[in-house]
Amino acid sequence: MSGVHFADRLCDRVLGANTRVCVGCDPEAALLPPALTAGGAVIAATERFGLELLPAVAPHAAAVKFQSAFYERLGSAGFCILEKHLAAARELGLPAILDAKRGDVGHTSHAYAEAYLAAGAPLEADAITVAPYLGRDTLEVFAEVAAANGKGLFVLVKTSNPSAADVQDVALAAGGMLFERVARLVAEVGAAAVGTMGYAAVGAVVGATYPELIAGLRHLMPRQFFLLPGVGAQGGDAGLLGPAFDERGLGALVAASRSVAFAWRNKPDADWREAAAGAARALRDDVNAAVGTP
Amino acid sequence: MSGVHFADRLCDRVLGANTRVCVGCDPEAALLPPALTAGGAVIAATERFGLELLPAVAPHAAAVKFQSAFYERLGSAGFCILEKHLAAARELGLPAILDAKRGDVGHTSHAYAEAYLAAGAPLEADAITVAPYLGRDTLEVFAEVAAANGKGLFVLVKTSNPSAADVQDVALAAGGMLFERVARLVAEVGAAAVGTMGYAAVGAVVGATYPELIAGLRHLMPRQFFLLPGVGAQGGDAGLLGPAFDERGLGALVAASRSVAFAWRNKPDADWREAAAGAARALRDDVNAAVGTP
Repeated sequence: MSGVHFADRLCDRVLGANTRVCVGCDPEAALLPPALTAGGAVIAATERFGLELLPAVAPHAAAVKFQSAFYERLGSAGFCILEKHLAAARELGLPAILDAKRGDVGHTSHAYAEAYLAAGAPLEADAITVAPYLGRDTLEVFAEVAAANGKGLFVLVKTSNPSAADVQDVALAAGGMLFERVARLVAEVGAAAVGTMGYAAVGAVVGATYPELIAGLRHLMPRQFFLLPGVGAQGGDAGLLGPAFDERGLGALVAASRSVAFAWRNKPDADWREAAAGAARALRDDVNAAVGTP
Repeated sequence: MSGVHFADRLCDRVLGANTRVCVGCDPEAALLPPALTAGGAVIAATERFGLELLPAVAPHAAAVKFQSAFYERLGSAGFCILEKHLAAARELGLPAILDAKRGDVGHTSHAYAEAYLAAGAPLEADAITVAPYLGRDTLEVFAEVAAANGKGLFVLVKTSNPSAADVQDVALAAGGMLFERVARLVAEVGAAAVGTMGYAAVGAVVGATYPELIAGLRHLMPRQFFLLPGVGAQGGDAGLLGPAFDERGLGALVAASRSVAFAWRNKPDADWREAAAGAARALRDDVNAAVGTP
């Protein structure tokens, strides 16, 4: 499959499974289900968490997003677990996005891209999130390695955190705000790699907490898949995200992490995997209703 | 030592060893010395590379900077090696900066900060590089964890790569360029954690390729240690970096990676470790001459 264009693979998955949800696998030690941590071993509990979460949510997920930070927190042992979780996603046919927000000068970005997007790499994923502060050459290097391997990237454009505005919303002398300039840059870099379904292998991260910005960003980035984090724990409303999608119900993934994987916290008597599956299914239905593809 | 303020530790090292050089340990597989790769095993060669480079250059180095990408390229096995290299730097008393350019929303940045700055973490370093695109809350989270552990961070302000200008040099409606706004943000976040030597635990990455910008950035960031990459392979001239330093010869580190660690490429008959040590010593002397502390 890795030779197929990343965005086409994603479109296939979205239409085949009729879901636009990207489930986050963020193994925060403090939030792991008691059923896993009862023995006290964080490493073993972290490994089981992903291996049990993925099959539980897979029927309702278009993709899974792994938050690298929570693996890195455990050192090399955490990366051993990440390798196993990535392999489990591959086994399930579930596209895996590594949320690592990497970005560096050209030859260093090339090493990052090969670490996560090269076929056969120990930490091979299907896509990675990339930070844009270093400009076009960073994005182009990731895009080249992605294209050569049927992989993708999602560039940070407008993030969901409270202080994103400090840098991203700065007003420019030429008009508009910085994130709009970054959006144009992402569209330009992505223009070279559009798949048969009309979307590029270079996508964009746009906080689901800004539904009012989606139409404008879609205008700036007509060929980009949007990765929309921030529903659930961060307060974004899935019902407002319809404008991110085209008439086929393609073009965006709604990402939720804590509100799905740790749904057990609101249902302490339920099996934690069933709670996660239920939350993923409910979000899938909410998004499909907003998109008009129930 | 970890309870001592990071910038004070760095100042002690600079004055005690009379060097302002930060040697980069970037184990690029294609550039490893033939003496190490003769057997063909990249993992073993990568491990030996750092373990032999560090003692060779330590007498001439104020700090060592590990480029995370080249470890990540090797998967979890690479992180095992990074743990060993970080431990080796600690053993040598050499402050270790992890060049990882991390940055995420608040609770995720906290996990990154704990991964690399918490005492006893498997990948414990003395400082980490941080990307500013997500704004103040990202920087504050790293600064808090750093302060609690006697550690530091270096925030990307103006990077040395060709297309840095795409984002960093954008002209703002309020005047100035984006990197100057980020510089002010770094100075504000760093203001809370100034050590007895007058420098903050929150420093800044400024490309050595822009000597003409240093005076202006020093004005905006009077309490920040500058990490100045880009001499050597990227074309920066150490002789022009004097304005980054105060009258004590403090306030900046000149970082060189390929031109030091892979100096063997210009001296194929020499021992690669002696070539690296010679390049580090020569750069130390060049910087000290520019600073006026020969």
